[in-house]
Amino acid sequence: MEIESATQEKAGPFTRGWNWLKALPDKSKAKVMNVAKSMRKLGQDDPRRVIHSLKVGLALTLVSLLYYSRTLYDGFGIAGIWAVLTVVVVFEFTVGGTLSKSLNRSFATFLAGALGLGAQHLASIFGEKGEPIVIGFLVFLLGAASTFTRFFPRIKARYDYGVLIFILTFSMVSVSGVRVVELLELAHQRLSTIVIGGATCIIVSMCICPVWAGEDLHNLVTSNIEKLASYLDGFGDEYFHCKSEDEEGKVNVSKKDKPFLQGYRSVLNSKSTEDSMANLARWEPRHGRFCFRHPWKQYLKIGAITRQCAYHIEALNGYINSNIQASEEFQSKIQEPCTKMSQESCKALRSLASAIKTMTDSSPANIHVENSKTAINELKFAVNKASSLEKAELLAIVPAATVASTLIEIVKCVEKLSEAVHELANLAHFKPVEATATQEKPQLSLHRGTVNPVLDGDNTDHITITIDANPTDSSENEKSQAPKSLASGTV
Amino acid sequence: MEIESATQEKAGPFTRGWNWLKALPDKSKAKVMNVAKSMRKLGQDDPRRVIHSLKVGLALTLVSLLYYSRTLYDGFGIAGIWAVLTVVVVFEFTVGGTLSKSLNRSFATFLAGALGLGAQHLASIFGEKGEPIVIGFLVFLLGAASTFTRFFPRIKARYDYGVLIFILTFSMVSVSGVRVVELLELAHQRLSTIVIGGATCIIVSMCICPVWAGEDLHNLVTSNIEKLASYLDGFGDEYFHCKSEDEEGKVNVSKKDKPFLQGYRSVLNSKSTEDSMANLARWEPRHGRFCFRHPWKQYLKIGAITRQCAYHIEALNGYINSNIQASEEFQSKIQEPCTKMSQESCKALRSLASAIKTMTDSSPANIHVENSKTAINELKFAVNKASSLEKAELLAIVPAATVASTLIEIVKCVEKLSEAVHELANLAHFKPVEATATQEKPQLSLHRGTVNPVLDGDNTDHITITIDANPTDSSENEKSQAPKSLASGTV
Repeated sequence: MEIESATQEKAGPFTRGWNWLKALPDKSKAKVMNVAKSMRKLGQDDPRRVIHSLKVGLALTLVSLLYYSRTLYDGFGIAGIWAVLTVVVVFEFTVGGTLSKSLNRSFATFLAGALGLGAQHLASIFGEKGEPIVIGFLVFLLGAASTFTRFFPRIKARYDYGVLIFILTFSMVSVSGVRVVELLELAHQRLSTIVIGGATCIIVSMCICPVWAGEDLHNLVTSNIEKLASYLDGFGDEYFHCKSEDEEGKVNVSKKDKPFLQGYRSVLNSKSTEDSMANLARWEPRHGRFCFRHPWKQYLKIGAITRQCAYHIEALNGYINSNIQASEEFQSKIQEPCTKMSQESCKALRSLASAIKTMTDSSPANIHVENSKTAINELKFAVNKASSLEKAELLAIVPAATVASTLIEIVKCVEKLSEAVHELANLAHFKPVEATATQEKPQLSLHRGTVNPVLDGDNTDHITITIDANPTDSSENEKSQAPKSLASGTV
Repeated sequence: MEIESATQEKAGPFTRGWNWLKALPDKSKAKVMNVAKSMRKLGQDDPRRVIHSLKVGLALTLVSLLYYSRTLYDGFGIAGIWAVLTVVVVFEFTVGGTLSKSLNRSFATFLAGALGLGAQHLASIFGEKGEPIVIGFLVFLLGAASTFTRFFPRIKARYDYGVLIFILTFSMVSVSGVRVVELLELAHQRLSTIVIGGATCIIVSMCICPVWAGEDLHNLVTSNIEKLASYLDGFGDEYFHCKSEDEEGKVNVSKKDKPFLQGYRSVLNSKSTEDSMANLARWEPRHGRFCFRHPWKQYLKIGAITRQCAYHIEALNGYINSNIQASEEFQSKIQEPCTKMSQESCKALRSLASAIKTMTDSSPANIHVENSKTAINELKFAVNKASSLEKAELLAIVPAATVASTLIEIVKCVEKLSEAVHELANLAHFKPVEATATQEKPQLSLHRGTVNPVLDGDNTDHITITIDANPTDSSENEKSQAPKSLASGTV
């Protein structure tokens, strides 16, 4: 390396320039290849992107040719160009976005046009000298006031573009009105060209492979729940087995190969995407399985609980990463209930995700939620038994106990999520599951037993059910054995 | 109530309509009052919003009057209206936003105008019949290709508006060019009016109470760290004292009165705001204490670690809310080190926040980071001693132990944050603190001593640490003497 650079230094600027030039084709070829690769990846990740680009091109060409053809030009004159402008500005990736922008633009243009005419009429009363002052004042007033309304969160979310176009059109009409005599005709032309542009966008956007913001939100919420499920699915194995592998130094190898351990991370920051999608979804008409007034707000609620759960998983993940040496003995004692908790939570989440996905009744998830709650009791029993370990080990026990405790928080979160999904099912009238319900029934009967209101416990959350012929059997016994302070559901 | 509604039902639609009309003034008055109130709140929360609105009004009026005056109108003709349009579209809340949009708009218009002229020239070769086809094809091609580039995250973040204007101008020029003979003049007019509009925006935005995205990002990151600090400041009292109050049923009263326990929540979802601010900040010139190439990326890194810390606090917060009855005895044993951990972390965070705020050296925070790490060891000692509690209580210990364990995670996070802030201090050349550094030194020397593994002592305050001029040194010493299971830093 050193020798090479020395030769280069000797070579002088000319040779260096020549070398650089010689390398240029290779370099630029590599760069082009890189860009092409990332373009291909972008298209492969979501082929709708390619389709969207073609749709924009199509709408643009359609409107351009309309403008190009004599008839339209004669009708609208130079204002026809506003149809082209509208297409470029209004065409969004989702139908909801396109609709919201088109409608905002049309209404704002209409309203501001009318107001602009009024303003101009008002100004003309003040004579030639007063006119510019009055117009200037009005433009200032409406510009400032409208800009301020854009800070209202509700207006910002839904009508931001409309307010922008309102200011734009108002100032254009009131200012330009002084020059153009046929103002009414201009306003008419402007509005019709905008309607033509907007309509073209809406038609192209809705008829050719439409991308619905509502459906996207629906899928995003579902896939986020599934991501958490895959984490919990793998967690038990990862935590308890890695610990034993740890001593052989295999931990690092196994970590990188497992993308499911990273999937939940995207859930942590999903709020802004969900919010904007829900805002766009409100504009969309009935499509597929979604009505016009589909309860999109409930999706935001589900999303919030999913994030809550992801925060706990983030805390949990710290314990997979760290090379803490916890007490092996204690860990093996809690391994079974902990694995069961994460497995059952995983199943509950998967069941909830598939209920949302297929828009069917979400009650099959209840079994798994109950099972995971049963596992909490099993855990308590296991911990109780573990008390007989030597005293000195208390310190070593704590990391594993924290994992268990976090898992309990996750179970609680899953329960909340299940309630939110039930609520969604009610609001959106999800179909009841018939075929599945009968399949699940035998499983249900396994849980048959009597409900014992645990009177000596202080938290009624845990009226768990006595289940015969089931591992939960023991947990019920544990329950009554557990001291008062445990009945609350958190170890 | 029931009687009233009965009378109303009897009254018939006319009377009901009359009643509704009678109530209308009051109702609308209440509504107007409500809107006025929320407007006032919006203005009070951030007075810059009012100023921004006035600035937009001013810029708009200026450009309108420019258009209105004969000289400009004669110069630009109807194209002068584009200056008004530019102001409306380009004026953003922050200087960075305005700059980015103005520059994007100008360059894109220039580039697309030139390309549009080329396209038109190319099309004219194909004769009158071929022209519209070639133009249509080119518009489709460039429209689709440019739309696709908007999906690249980097382009989306910085040049999205530019690409939009590129498509817009290209299609407008290439399409309209066929009609307007003096195309070059049109292009020139368009560009100059856009430059006039953009320049007006930039000047107004930068000269009258400028809002810098960079400064906002700086303040946001600082205030987020401070929010975490206030949580940790209050946590010790809240957790350990509420527990004792719990039995008197005062918990719910005390919770609502404490907004600092909720402040950290806004940190959880701060990512999108920070990202967009950092993108805008890149466009801003040197202002105040920030150079042109200020390391804004580092702020994003600090923000990410702050969020990480907030996730842990979210987990911690679950334990304040829950009415778990943990072992009082154990809790009182760990109270001191836990309170110290949260207090010292709080102090470290406050010190880091003030270092960023004043842009001075962040090393004073090191002491608190070290102190909080010392507290971890004290905690370990306390837990170790607590092993001598009765075995049956192990279960009751776990919730409190989890709190302690989460606190340790927070301390780790604070340490990471401190490193990131140091890095920022290096990158942005923060001033060294002279006065404070000497003030802090005596405090450091207080901790000088040897690490005594206090085997029989009751008071953990005795575990003081050898600090020979270098705090990190000592922590290394502690580590090597701590039992193996503790070496990892997590109880």
